[in-house]
Amino acid sequence: MVERSSQIRAPYVRLRIEKRGNGPHFTKLDIVEAVLREHASGRLPPQSRLPPVRVLHHQLGISKNTAQAAYEELTARGVVENRKRLGYFVLPDEGARDPASTPRPAALRVRDSPTTATAGRRAERRTPILLTNVFIAHELLPLPRIAECFRACLKNPGLPYMYDAQGFRPLRERIAERLKRRGIPAQADDIIMTAGSQQALDIAVRALPKRSIATENPTYGIGKQLFELQQMQVAGLPLDPFTGIDLQDWRRRIVAQRPAALYLTTNFHNPTGYSYSTTELTALLALSQEFDFGFIEDDWGSDMLSYSEFRPPLRALGGDRVLYLNSFTKKLLPSLRIGYLLANADTRDALLATKRAAALGNPPLIEIVLHEFLERGYYDAHLRALHRELDSRYRACLETLSDVMPQGVRWTTPGGGPILWLEIPRNIDLVKLAERLLERNVAINLGSRNCFFGEPHLHGVVIGYAHCAPKRLASGLAILGEEIKRGLK
Amino acid sequence: MVERSSQIRAPYVRLRIEKRGNGPHFTKLDIVEAVLREHASGRLPPQSRLPPVRVLHHQLGISKNTAQAAYEELTARGVVENRKRLGYFVLPDEGARDPASTPRPAALRVRDSPTTATAGRRAERRTPILLTNVFIAHELLPLPRIAECFRACLKNPGLPYMYDAQGFRPLRERIAERLKRRGIPAQADDIIMTAGSQQALDIAVRALPKRSIATENPTYGIGKQLFELQQMQVAGLPLDPFTGIDLQDWRRRIVAQRPAALYLTTNFHNPTGYSYSTTELTALLALSQEFDFGFIEDDWGSDMLSYSEFRPPLRALGGDRVLYLNSFTKKLLPSLRIGYLLANADTRDALLATKRAAALGNPPLIEIVLHEFLERGYYDAHLRALHRELDSRYRACLETLSDVMPQGVRWTTPGGGPILWLEIPRNIDLVKLAERLLERNVAINLGSRNCFFGEPHLHGVVIGYAHCAPKRLASGLAILGEEIKRGLK
Repeated sequence: MVERSSQIRAPYVRLRIEKRGNGPHFTKLDIVEAVLREHASGRLPPQSRLPPVRVLHHQLGISKNTAQAAYEELTARGVVENRKRLGYFVLPDEGARDPASTPRPAALRVRDSPTTATAGRRAERRTPILLTNVFIAHELLPLPRIAECFRACLKNPGLPYMYDAQGFRPLRERIAERLKRRGIPAQADDIIMTAGSQQALDIAVRALPKRSIATENPTYGIGKQLFELQQMQVAGLPLDPFTGIDLQDWRRRIVAQRPAALYLTTNFHNPTGYSYSTTELTALLALSQEFDFGFIEDDWGSDMLSYSEFRPPLRALGGDRVLYLNSFTKKLLPSLRIGYLLANADTRDALLATKRAAALGNPPLIEIVLHEFLERGYYDAHLRALHRELDSRYRACLETLSDVMPQGVRWTTPGGGPILWLEIPRNIDLVKLAERLLERNVAINLGSRNCFFGEPHLHGVVIGYAHCAPKRLASGLAILGEEIKRGLK
Repeated sequence: MVERSSQIRAPYVRLRIEKRGNGPHFTKLDIVEAVLREHASGRLPPQSRLPPVRVLHHQLGISKNTAQAAYEELTARGVVENRKRLGYFVLPDEGARDPASTPRPAALRVRDSPTTATAGRRAERRTPILLTNVFIAHELLPLPRIAECFRACLKNPGLPYMYDAQGFRPLRERIAERLKRRGIPAQADDIIMTAGSQQALDIAVRALPKRSIATENPTYGIGKQLFELQQMQVAGLPLDPFTGIDLQDWRRRIVAQRPAALYLTTNFHNPTGYSYSTTELTALLALSQEFDFGFIEDDWGSDMLSYSEFRPPLRALGGDRVLYLNSFTKKLLPSLRIGYLLANADTRDALLATKRAAALGNPPLIEIVLHEFLERGYYDAHLRALHRELDSRYRACLETLSDVMPQGVRWTTPGGGPILWLEIPRNIDLVKLAERLLERNVAINLGSRNCFFGEPHLHGVVIGYAHCAPKRLASGLAILGEEIKRGLK
């Protein structure tokens, strides 16, 4: 019962902070203006908590003093208040300004196909430095403790004879508790265990009332393949992580297609890695009421935010309008293949029937072992250690990028998750770049180009700092920087 | 490597033997006439092996002497020859008679939903005797040896980090070897591991070129739900296990609908438990060439034929025309959830893409453990012990039925698999019967009625002799017999 006692902080709002100046770093003014803009728009909920100082420090690569100075400025302006150790909280405002201002985003990533990932892993052991693997490195995962739980469960309660199509109930109860502690009302009856988030998405999509969906363009590649397999109409909603989403444009596309649901990855969107701001999520919820569509929210990234912090997912804001899915596999061990759906009283029966038709049930032993792992407090302990290591790798990655990348190369600053996106000037041919890199023993994967609907509007690669060992990553990025410079000449 | 050395006999043809007389037992003449009829129709392949004497003895509940006498009669007539220890083999014949003769079948069974089954199992422990559970009893399954393989694999090779979407390759190689020894050409590249046969069926159905399928009426209940979920047109092909299939009628229905594929369970069809004769399979293959459809063959029962014998599945006769699926879960342990698809060079890529879209992959540890289990020879040893026990339970069940059932009640004689079908006179209300039985602490499950398209043409219940302990089964059947008698008065 270690887990229950671990302290959970209040969630903080999602902010997008734009870098206005030409210097290499974010400034105090960038932060102040971002908060003022969001606050004045009236969509920053009063009493909401701002991102902690150390989070801004980490995410944006600025000093804590800079972040602290920005918050003190905002406090002086009467926009926020400092509640001692609890953090900075938003005060109510009167006049709301133009809500259509389009600010800047934060994050970037791509899920590789497992085959590619396996190939990449093998390759990394043999020789080339693979820069774009989205998985978390083997050595950061708690394999000995998972094996320990397997051995314990094989002894007691022993191998199960039968299975529950919905999933091992004590595990569902434990997951419901975790969700509740994060501000998401949930009960075990509404949770359906799945084989990773892919099966969760498959079930969600097949249970929709019509074959029509909208999703970010680009979107998660194997999700896109699923939509094609299901012969769905798909509206691609353009997403540029460097300029944010254009709500008016999204609205037009939604009106034109009238999809049954929006499939969104709200933390570290796949493949761009974008994280939505709270005001964007609120605006999308309003749109869903106006045009009567639901959401399928893929929240895989929520356990990969730095400093063991978390941000409220869309489900916490939109309730029953949102079918929520999440997965343990990437953060714990890819080979476990455990995810889940959080449905509600109206949808759970249809979703469970869909799961039964798809696969009846998944091996309960794995679910029993995961329950044991949570029960012993191993998961929270693992996440804390993982966050520390990822945070350190992220910082090192940002520093290397500042050192080695030429003018014109941009990268996102997700502040969590296993990757960031590196945007490369358009006059560099990516295929030729990949070939030249391979000659120098560095591999990049251009698979994210299959995640777009039509011609890609981004031009770059994923940098998987959670998979590539830090020294190898630094060497690989240095070579990548050199080859980009060479190409720019 | 114990497994490789286990001796495999030549497969024998499937025969349907009708009971002509009014006596309680099959006679020598019934067997002789059945073989003569099939032989004269020209559809019994020359050189094919007849069912072994001990199989007829077991399946039909006749003495070995009766079966032996029938085969000697056929030998004397020059229809078959006795090849010493190899068995009785068909000799070629000249004149073929009417091919449309409709003979009688052999078997019956229903797959319950897992939820029902779990409930049933719990119930059985508490009080009522559940007669209709399709699963194999816990105590007949090799749980300690499976747990031993888990422990061994956790030590070496240890927990896997990544997974192969197609399934653990050494396991696929081992399965391909087993199939080859049974006369089915197969290679690891064409095998796709799945979460039981349900996911195999899901993948097969979703990869069809159009949403149109034909299947037996009745058909496997959760398969039927899957077809509905996929919004498929379904032609139900009437199947009466007491009169066999009407090929002319099937042909008419196939011509009317032109399905993309026939979904058939060729051994112990679900829910009737019917087993197709070789001549029927051959006729269906001819039909598939005429009207250009394929087959999805569910061969779950092939490892549950008595005396560790086997019969050639449709895939062995129809090759690439047949997408073959099978499962280990029921025979080994329901909670393992392992099945597979055998595709071919033309279909495997599309099927694998479908599996990836559906669930990416399943937990490789389970696949690694099953491989270990096969490699150590545990599976074959388990099957031999399981067959002995099931055979003994089957004989006891037939004897009890002869003793306790009134005139007008009929039952099938599958000679393998975990169940048989008990057909009850139509003037008995099954729901009321179930209620009266429950008052006497005996439970029957009428779920098989959901497996029909339209009004059920069968009127009875599944008897799960592999799940219910023999003494309890005998008591339960005695009470069932009494209640049927009471209802008939």
